[in-house]
Parts: sequence; structure tokens; C-alpha cells
Amino acid sequence: MSSDTPTSLLPESPVLRAAVRAREAAAALAPLPRSAKDAALLAIADALDARTEEIVAANAEDVAKARAAGTAEGIVDRLTLTPERVRAIAADVRNVVGLPDPVGEVVRGSTLPNGIDLRQVRVPLGVVGIVYEARPNVTVDAAALCLKSGNAVLLRGSSSAYASNTALVRVVRDAVEGAGLPADAVQLVPGESRESVRELMRARGLVDVLIPRGGASLIRTVVEESTVPVIETGTGNCHVYVDAAADLDTAVRILVNSKAQRVSVCNAAETLLVHRDVADRFLPLALDALAEAGVTVHGDERVLAAAGGGRATVVPATEEDWGTEYLSYDIAAAVVDSLDEAVRHIRRWSSGHTEAIVTGSQQAARRFTQLVDSTTVAVNASTRFTDGSQFGFGAEIGISTQKLHARGPMGLPELTSTKYVVTGDGHIRG
Amino acid sequence: MSSDTPTSLLPESPVLRAAVRAREAAAALAPLPRSAKDAALLAIADALDARTEEIVAANAEDVAKARAAGTAEGIVDRLTLTPERVRAIAADVRNVVGLPDPVGEVVRGSTLPNGIDLRQVRVPLGVVGIVYEARPNVTVDAAALCLKSGNAVLLRGSSSAYASNTALVRVVRDAVEGAGLPADAVQLVPGESRESVRELMRARGLVDVLIPRGGASLIRTVVEESTVPVIETGTGNCHVYVDAAADLDTAVRILVNSKAQRVSVCNAAETLLVHRDVADRFLPLALDALAEAGVTVHGDERVLAAAGGGRATVVPATEEDWGTEYLSYDIAAAVVDSLDEAVRHIRRWSSGHTEAIVTGSQQAARRFTQLVDSTTVAVNASTRFTDGSQFGFGAEIGISTQKLHARGPMGLPELTSTKYVVTGDGHIRG
Repeated sequence: MSSDTPTSLLPESPVLRAAVRAREAAAALAPLPRSAKDAALLAIADALDARTEEIVAANAEDVAKARAAGTAEGIVDRLTLTPERVRAIAADVRNVVGLPDPVGEVVRGSTLPNGIDLRQVRVPLGVVGIVYEARPNVTVDAAALCLKSGNAVLLRGSSSAYASNTALVRVVRDAVEGAGLPADAVQLVPGESRESVRELMRARGLVDVLIPRGGASLIRTVVEESTVPVIETGTGNCHVYVDAAADLDTAVRILVNSKAQRVSVCNAAETLLVHRDVADRFLPLALDALAEAGVTVHGDERVLAAAGGGRATVVPATEEDWGTEYLSYDIAAAVVDSLDEAVRHIRRWSSGHTEAIVTGSQQAARRFTQLVDSTTVAVNASTRFTDGSQFGFGAEIGISTQKLHARGPMGLPELTSTKYVVTGDGHIRG
Repeated sequence: MSSDTPTSLLPESPVLRAAVRAREAAAALAPLPRSAKDAALLAIADALDARTEEIVAANAEDVAKARAAGTAEGIVDRLTLTPERVRAIAADVRNVVGLPDPVGEVVRGSTLPNGIDLRQVRVPLGVVGIVYEARPNVTVDAAALCLKSGNAVLLRGSSSAYASNTALVRVVRDAVEGAGLPADAVQLVPGESRESVRELMRARGLVDVLIPRGGASLIRTVVEESTVPVIETGTGNCHVYVDAAADLDTAVRILVNSKAQRVSVCNAAETLLVHRDVADRFLPLALDALAEAGVTVHGDERVLAAAGGGRATVVPATEEDWGTEYLSYDIAAAVVDSLDEAVRHIRRWSSGHTEAIVTGSQQAARRFTQLVDSTTVAVNASTRFTDGSQFGFGAEIGISTQKLHARGPMGLPELTSTKYVVTGDGHIRG
């Protein structure tokens, strides 16, 4: 189906109708120069500031419902919008204005032997679907990044944030339209039911990519049921490997930072692996430091043996621990006989997000970097650096843990595809 | 599941067992330098030359069966291997030896403000599955391209080429093993049944990408049923648009070349669109030239009107013609009122492969290039140039018509992913 489907052919499903309108908007966005898109982004930021009250009032409905339903305080907090938070969201949009426009970038180009000019040029993906949890800030972030990269976006947030998202999208659409762009470039997927997600996942040909952002079960569902291409994001079971040649103080610092600087994020470390040659000296320091940071250690036998007498809370690890993304003050820990054993453990259990090695050995760093198959390998650095803004991308739409299209933090270029332009002078093939 | 799954945990399905072994082989291939991979490719080429007789004999079984089953001669021809064709296949493998190794290429890199060195480096995808029709040359081509890019490959050819593929893969594996690489880097998917394709499509986590090569129905099945990420290839409904400002002789030459230089390929033109301002002068020339090339024209009313008296075979087009990939000496043709109408027609009916504009107007060329959303836009050049070797890629594994990961002809870099390497000096996040 195309952007030029006559209205009479519009599908009956409200979700698919929204997708058809998104395709039409995407066709209008694709050729726009940066200045037109930036003007719309500035209008959005200004509108968020001007209409903060309306947004906060709508959000209050969601928050009241969530409280009435006995939702955990952490989740209510993520859901809550204050005037200050709305200002921060507007500031993030202004930040996107400052980022370069990826569309039009010539990725490669050459003159072929027959004189044809070949150019591979970045173009928008088209229609991007985002399925996410009860974080209203994602609504505006995703809309801003998609607009900047020339894409229309279909937003499918949590039903528990429906009033907030409705208000935010109304404000964004008004601003987009005011700036002369099609309002349908930003749409909330109609309907609060699971069925609307399902329809979005089957809208192949109308939606170019679906990006699920949220918990593991949401991501698994989308990956398994979608016929629309998916970019898998975010699950992290990151490892810190302390090599035989590690500086132990550095190793403690990197371990504690990786685990405990912020435990609820996908780039936090969930497993510690220690080379047996330094286990005796390193483990007492590490267990102490982890205890200080409030971390419970789920250790293998050798780690348990090292724990005797210290202040650390060390419990026996089960096989399940090696595969767990705790997102809490917990870490699994094991002693390994070699770097290669560490690599094997990681290849078996890691989610392929980020793994760190602490070592003074160039050979060990090189081998670990070559053999570990994850989005990011950190050498003598915390796992916590795997992040679009840390990497200097300015913003990120998520962290891809798959290998196709994009891997690792995704910035604006990852929201584009490319197109070849072949320019000849009446060239035909002989 | 990982490359280090203990043998006791191997799945019972032969297809999944093959996939597990492929993962192990992929882990061994990933860090190999170019020299090791090139040595294996040369050994394959030599083995194909040395064991041509064995291959041709096996192929004769398939050909005899196909003939007995009354298979069309064109398909039997594609299936047939002669000593000369085997030599050509070996030559193609030697050609891959000469191509640069994409693995290890630093795609981008910088030193972050905090002093961390960030590098995005190309790495193999891992395990690539290829599902294809009865073309035994694809077996060796795909294996060579996957090996060169550090990937293990699972080959699922047509059951009608099973004896040929078995012989070819035996020869290739012997050579790979003789060169010191794991034989399981190249495997034929066990079983000739549809069920084996289905298992391959569900082997998410073991297989990193599936590339279907072949007819539209094969591709549709894989796209719809696979939970493994898919790269959609090859369907082409390509358009030639003759603009108001076209040089008409050039337009005729490009039209005939696009349509008739080789009709059975995805980059052949299937629809002609003519601007009304030149229709009166252009159509008689075009219809004559198409008639000369043996092409039947499926025209709209205005094309039919122009055909009166000429030698051309012109039949009325139905709506179905606009969406048809003929792959034969047929072309649909319509007169449009403007460039924008041509673009709308293309957006509605094209498969998004390749569209050409013939024009002397810079503005028209620019607008067409911006608005057409296909893998390739050709300006004053035949649609037939959309091809890996024409583009100078040296070889191609297929032409992607999707937007994610790769779009257009896919060479060796498109068979890779990337990994970020973060190198610090004890860096932690504040």
C-alpha cells in the first residue's frame, strides 16, 4: 500500500488508518530541509512551555488512576509530570534542534568506470512505530527525534499514561501544524487495548520499523509477533571481567561504578567474573566495596569461599543468576580459570549489551575485544558509558541489542535508511 | 543460546543442531584475519576445479529428475552445471579473494571529551541463512561471500537441486577444513521438506539473519513467518518516466535498454510513464522501438490512442498491470499530466526497487530524486545499472528492497554488523 491510497481504500481499522495517514505525512516530510524541521521542533518546545498547565492537569488524571490502582511508587514517579519536568522535556527538544540533520548525508559516492555518478544518500526510514511503557517523556523525545530525521511516528504508549500522552501529542501536533508541517507526522495510536499493538505489529508495508522500548516481556512479544521489521532494544546482562593483569584498585572502581552508579538501567553490570590468579587478592577488596555500596553478591563456590569473615552479603548463585538482569543492588560473581573461560561464560549468558575488561595487558585487551560479541566492549572503563549522550550522539532513541541495521546506542543516523542516486548521460547497459 | 551450549543441551532437530554448530563456527571465524579467509577461498576455488567431475555427476541426477518431472526448460537450464559453469563458479570465488575484507573497518571513531577512545568497528553478523531456488551457483557464491565477511552460512537450496548442492557443499567443506577453518562454517540445511525451512525461520537467537533469494512467494513466506530477522530481496516493478524536458532519442534508448536488455531480472523496467507534453511525439518512437524489441505494451487510453496505425502490439492495461512484475517482453504504459503524477503513480505501484527519469531539466531531476522512495533513482540512465557489480561492489548477495540494515545491492559490508570499542584508563561515570 502506498501514501497515495485513495481515501475510499482506507482500511477500517483506526490503527491502520492512522498508519496510512502517517505514510502520507512521511512522504511530505522526506524532502524537507533542516530549517523547516528545526522550526517545527522549536515550535514544539515553545508550545510545551506555553501549555505546561494543560499537560500537567492531564497527567494528574493518570497519576490519580495509577495511585488508586495501587501502582508501585517507582512507577508512579516515572509517570508523573511536574512543570519542571515538562520544562526539561522542552529543553531536550531544543537540544535536538542543535543536532545535525542526517538526511541528505552522502554515505559513499564515486564515479563508475563508465562515467555514471553513484551516490548513496541518507533518507528517512518513513514511518516509525514506538511501543513503550508509562514514561510520558518518551512521547516527546521520540517525536522530536523522528521529526528531525524526517520520519512520521506512531506512538503507542502505555494505557496508564493515555491522558498524558493524549495531551502531549495534542500540543505537539498543534505546534507541528502551526509550523506548516503535516500534523499526522505525529500520532498517538488509537485505542488503549492490546489489540491496537497487535494491529501495529501486522502493519507491514505501512510501518517501516517498530522499536519497542521497555521491559523484556514487551520486547519479546513485539519481536516474536511483529511482521513489521523490529529493532530490539535494551535488555542488558552486562559483565565486568577482572583479568589476571588488572590493576586491582582500578578494577574495584570500575566494578562498583558499573554495578551501583545506577542500578535500574540496561548498561549496569549484572555479573562479575574474576581471573583465578587475582581472585585471592581482588575478591576481598571487591566484596568490601560492593558491601559498602549495598550490593548483595550471588557467588559461585570460589566467591563464597573468599567471602568468609568479611562484611559482604554473599549468597550462593544458582544457574539462573548467570542469566538474570537484576536491575537492583545484586550482582552474580564467579571465578574463571582464564580469559577464554570468561569469554565463554559471556557468550553463553550475556544479552550482548556491554562487557568490560579490566586489564593492564595489551594482549588480553585485544583478545577480549575480538572474541566478545556484544554491542559494546569496554576496556578499562565502566559499562555505564554505553549511552547515546555519553557517546556524543546528542540523543538516543534506544540501545539496539540486535545486529541488523543498528547496534548499540541509536542516534539520528540510525533512524535513516539510504537510497542510491545514479546519474548518467543517457547511459545504457551493454 | 550461545556458541558454547554443551553438547548435552543440543536441540533434537537436525536443523537447530546445524544452527548451533554454525554458531560455534562463527565464533571461530569472527577474529580471523583476511589472509586466513582468503586462503580458504582459494582452496575452495581449487577444489571446485579439481572435483568438477564429481559435481557435474551429482548435478546430472537433479537434471534427470527435473526432466522426468516435466520441468520447464528455462528452469532446467538454471539448474544445469557443466564443467564450464563450474569453472565460472570457481572464478567467481577467486574474484571474492580480491575484494577487501570489511571486518575490522573502523566506521567512525573519536576521542570523547572525557578522554575515552570510542571506535565503531565492523564485525561479522554471525550466522547467515540463505533460502533460495534451484540455482546451484548461489550455493558457492553465498558461501564465499559469507566466509569472506567472517560469517557462517546455512544454505537452504531448492530440493530439486539437493544432489548438486550436497556435492558442492561437500567440496567446499573439505576445502575449508583443509585450510584450517571449521567445516561447519558452511552447511547445507538438513532435510528437503518445507519443515526444515520453517525451523530455520524460527531459529531466532541461533541465526542472525535470513536472506530469501528467489520468487515473490518464497520471499513473502519468509518475511511473514520468520522470527529471525529477514532481509527482503529482489522483487522489482521498475519504472521509466519520460519527462516533458526529455531528449526523446535518449529516452527511447534508455526505455528499450531498461525493458528488453534482459527481461528476466529484477532491475528490468515494467512500466513506462510519459509526460503528456511529449506523449504525442515520444509515443510513436517508443512504440516502434518496443515493437522492434518484441515487447507487448499494456497501455492506458492515451497510449492506446497513440498506437493507431503503428507496428506495435498494444493491448489495454488493467489495474493489475500497474502492479505486475512481468519478467517478460511486456511493459505497462501510461501518460501522466505532470512529474508529480508520475511520482504518485510510482509511490502507489512500485516495489521500491529502481525508477528512472529521463529529463534535461535539472529541477525535474532534483524533484524526482527527492520524492521517489526506492532503493535506486536513475537520472538519464537505464534501470539495469542497479546491481552489485555495476555499482563496483565486486559481488552481491542480493538486492535489498527493504529499508532496514541494507537497501539496494548488498556487497560484503552489508554482511556485517558493528561493535563499539570503548577504551579508557580506569574511566567511571560520574
